[in-house]
Amino acid sequence: MKNKGLLVVISGPAGAGKGTVVSELVKDDNVVVSVSATTRQPRGQEKDGVEYHFLSREKFREMIDHDGFLEYAEYCGNYYGSPKKQALDNMAQGKDVILEIEVQGCEKIKKQNPDCISIFIMPPSMEVLEHRLRKRATDSEESILNRLARAKEEIRLAANYDYIIVNGPIEQCVEDVKSVLNAEKLKASKFDVNTVLK
Amino acid sequence: MKNKGLLVVISGPAGAGKGTVVSELVKDDNVVVSVSATTRQPRGQEKDGVEYHFLSREKFREMIDHDGFLEYAEYCGNYYGSPKKQALDNMAQGKDVILEIEVQGCEKIKKQNPDCISIFIMPPSMEVLEHRLRKRATDSEESILNRLARAKEEIRLAANYDYIIVNGPIEQCVEDVKSVLNAEKLKASKFDVNTVLK
Repeated sequence: MKNKGLLVVISGPAGAGKGTVVSELVKDDNVVVSVSATTRQPRGQEKDGVEYHFLSREKFREMIDHDGFLEYAEYCGNYYGSPKKQALDNMAQGKDVILEIEVQGCEKIKKQNPDCISIFIMPPSMEVLEHRLRKRATDSEESILNRLARAKEEIRLAANYDYIIVNGPIEQCVEDVKSVLNAEKLKASKFDVNTVLK
Repeated sequence: MKNKGLLVVISGPAGAGKGTVVSELVKDDNVVVSVSATTRQPRGQEKDGVEYHFLSREKFREMIDHDGFLEYAEYCGNYYGSPKKQALDNMAQGKDVILEIEVQGCEKIKKQNPDCISIFIMPPSMEVLEHRLRKRATDSEESILNRLARAKEEIRLAANYDYIIVNGPIEQCVEDVKSVLNAEKLKASKFDVNTVLK
């Protein structure tokens, strides 16, 4: 019998490098990232089912009514959510499902899915985070300062996560996340001693 | 500031391969194995401080009175115990300390050291375990059957451990133990967010 995959929440401030970490993790065929659903309009080159599942407000509300989300929230007049069915289907096939979500979303998911593993990707320091945000060079000074202030708030909440992994060198960070996923599968609660005793 | 090392209990039935796993782990300079103390006489080539610290009954009892053991027990008229001071000193230096002990000893250590990590090394099956025990070819048939019966009892108690790691190919087993030790150090409870916020 194949073991069920893990539900893994990954959060962290903008600039901490979550996206890069996740894109390294999904190179493993047994790891998939959950594609969020949203009611906002696609931007630029965004494709339905790739960056997001783009849904109408009616469809989104219908899914809410049918318990179709692991978590959802409304920001700036648009809904965002993590569809439940695709996550559960992948987990049933033994795949680890990664949700890259906000701190608030993590709390909601933990309440309903106490078995989920939560990982906070931490910048090595505020200086490094600021440097990374400035390197992007796409944001205004005001936007950078806003992101730094928000990062501090998020970092203060990191203690609520199961694991905190510092993203210094990316390779080390990815290895650390892989260690965590492997170790979680070795928990005694996931092992049936009868398979050995029979 | 260097983080404190882990206290790691490793148990498993005779023939499961604990000894080989531990000897691979201590190749890392940051991992040390705790040398037990005993009042039994040295056998053959055994050297004081290598296989055991050989102590007189008086000295052993004095150490018991001074809370000098993480756990101790009396078997067949001899005391066996895990000295506390050397373990705590090594942990303070950031080294992981491995105690290779019996299931009963593990329960005692967990009561007094709730932070300890317990790992049960599991044979892939009873058939493989029997094969490994017979390959040693040093034991009588009766002794092999006794060990198998005892192994079953120990395996039934494996669910009390934090982690169960199957020792199929030894390299995989060692990697799995290393994953666990690494992941345990990434627990959010071991991280001080103020080091990043300051």
